[in-house]
Amino acid sequence: MSDFSNVKVVLVNTSHPGNIGASARAMKNMGLRNLTLVQPSEFPSGVAVGRAVSATDIIEAASVVDTLQAAVADCGLVIGASARSRRIPWPMLSPDQCASKVLAEASHNRVALVFGREDAGLNNEELQLCHFHVQIPTDEVYSSLNLGAAVMVICYELHKAGLRDIGTVNPEEDELWDQEKATGEQVEHFYEHLQRVLVAIDFHDPDNPRQLMQRMRRLFSRIRIDVMEMNILRGILTNIEYHIKDTGQDSDKRRADE
Amino acid sequence: MSDFSNVKVVLVNTSHPGNIGASARAMKNMGLRNLTLVQPSEFPSGVAVGRAVSATDIIEAASVVDTLQAAVADCGLVIGASARSRRIPWPMLSPDQCASKVLAEASHNRVALVFGREDAGLNNEELQLCHFHVQIPTDEVYSSLNLGAAVMVICYELHKAGLRDIGTVNPEEDELWDQEKATGEQVEHFYEHLQRVLVAIDFHDPDNPRQLMQRMRRLFSRIRIDVMEMNILRGILTNIEYHIKDTGQDSDKRRADE
Repeated sequence: MSDFSNVKVVLVNTSHPGNIGASARAMKNMGLRNLTLVQPSEFPSGVAVGRAVSATDIIEAASVVDTLQAAVADCGLVIGASARSRRIPWPMLSPDQCASKVLAEASHNRVALVFGREDAGLNNEELQLCHFHVQIPTDEVYSSLNLGAAVMVICYELHKAGLRDIGTVNPEEDELWDQEKATGEQVEHFYEHLQRVLVAIDFHDPDNPRQLMQRMRRLFSRIRIDVMEMNILRGILTNIEYHIKDTGQDSDKRRADE
Repeated sequence: MSDFSNVKVVLVNTSHPGNIGASARAMKNMGLRNLTLVQPSEFPSGVAVGRAVSATDIIEAASVVDTLQAAVADCGLVIGASARSRRIPWPMLSPDQCASKVLAEASHNRVALVFGREDAGLNNEELQLCHFHVQIPTDEVYSSLNLGAAVMVICYELHKAGLRDIGTVNPEEDELWDQEKATGEQVEHFYEHLQRVLVAIDFHDPDNPRQLMQRMRRLFSRIRIDVMEMNILRGILTNIEYHIKDTGQDSDKRRADE
């Protein structure tokens, strides 16, 4: 049996506590146990406990945090549920592709499965914190799934993949990798550093961003950077800053910001 | 798109009208429309309508009958959801086997998917009205699924089988991408440019390369960079070169000082 102790389900800004309970029940049915809630509207809640039925242990042990960034800071793989295609397409998985990826990664790294608000899903900023998006295929007439139902489908596919024990058939990229993947927190520091440098070399104007940082995030999240690569990229950025230090106003501004 | 007009979902003796609404929503999400209720405890029900959200049309069109026999009288294939193995083993399907069978049959015959009571499922007499039983795999610690969640999983697998039938189940990344991929030649030019800049910022010493360029190649070749991303990266390199152009002497001096 697969061990999903490295996998957490993250629910962002859930409005209805019943959906938290239903998600906990679905998780326990499928062998998952770690639930993190980002700013739930109503929690703790008797309604959540009632709908959880025999999964109240998951509700009681749930972490509550303020931001999605905090929820995924310790995760090497973050997958967000997305109902619709975005202006900037993101690497998109079907639920069974998602399950294979999670299963391969969870043997050695923490993984987050992120679900957004009942009415509006995840916003663009939250979606860009994800390495991949997962989309549950639906009939085009009515694509809006109940939150608990979406959690059920994703967890069900994960459980199924665990039963199939796919790891022995097609080893995933990560199993053969020589370096640990960077955590969400390390990657966020990299994006901050990158943005600082792009401003300093006059490539990026935060007042007229033209989706530049989204495109950079989309690019680097496809790569799943490992720790050594992260160190190399940070080193490159530092050397660039060092070399442009004496070129005037921009760098003064930068120093003031630091 | 598959036509599920020959498929009906039958809910037997449902206690909580919310589960009728959740089932209707799950059905509509997955392209099913025919709902039959056998002796529901409370129906019609505002709670059912509320949980159905945009699937109230399915609730309004639902048939209500007195017996399971009446519900399946017109069906050539009847499959019942069963949580546990019975004293008398019955032909048992997984949800995806169930989906294949339903899909094949529904082209020429009526099919019923039957779900039992929230607390006790289908009784033995009802199970024996079914040609097959379908069991949703669960963790052994907690095998009791919410009724709406069970309907969702079975309908989701059916929808997936329908997509597989028409070959659109796992679209490749490229099909959804908004930009053309860069050519091998463009990528090589990028590596040359990158190396030039890494030398200029004193990050890379071709006489002592420490596998740096191999690592950069391994990093960027894990994704298939698109043309717009390539242009952005080349633009960044050009701006870096522009900003360090006048600092050659300084860096010579610095090197001498070190």
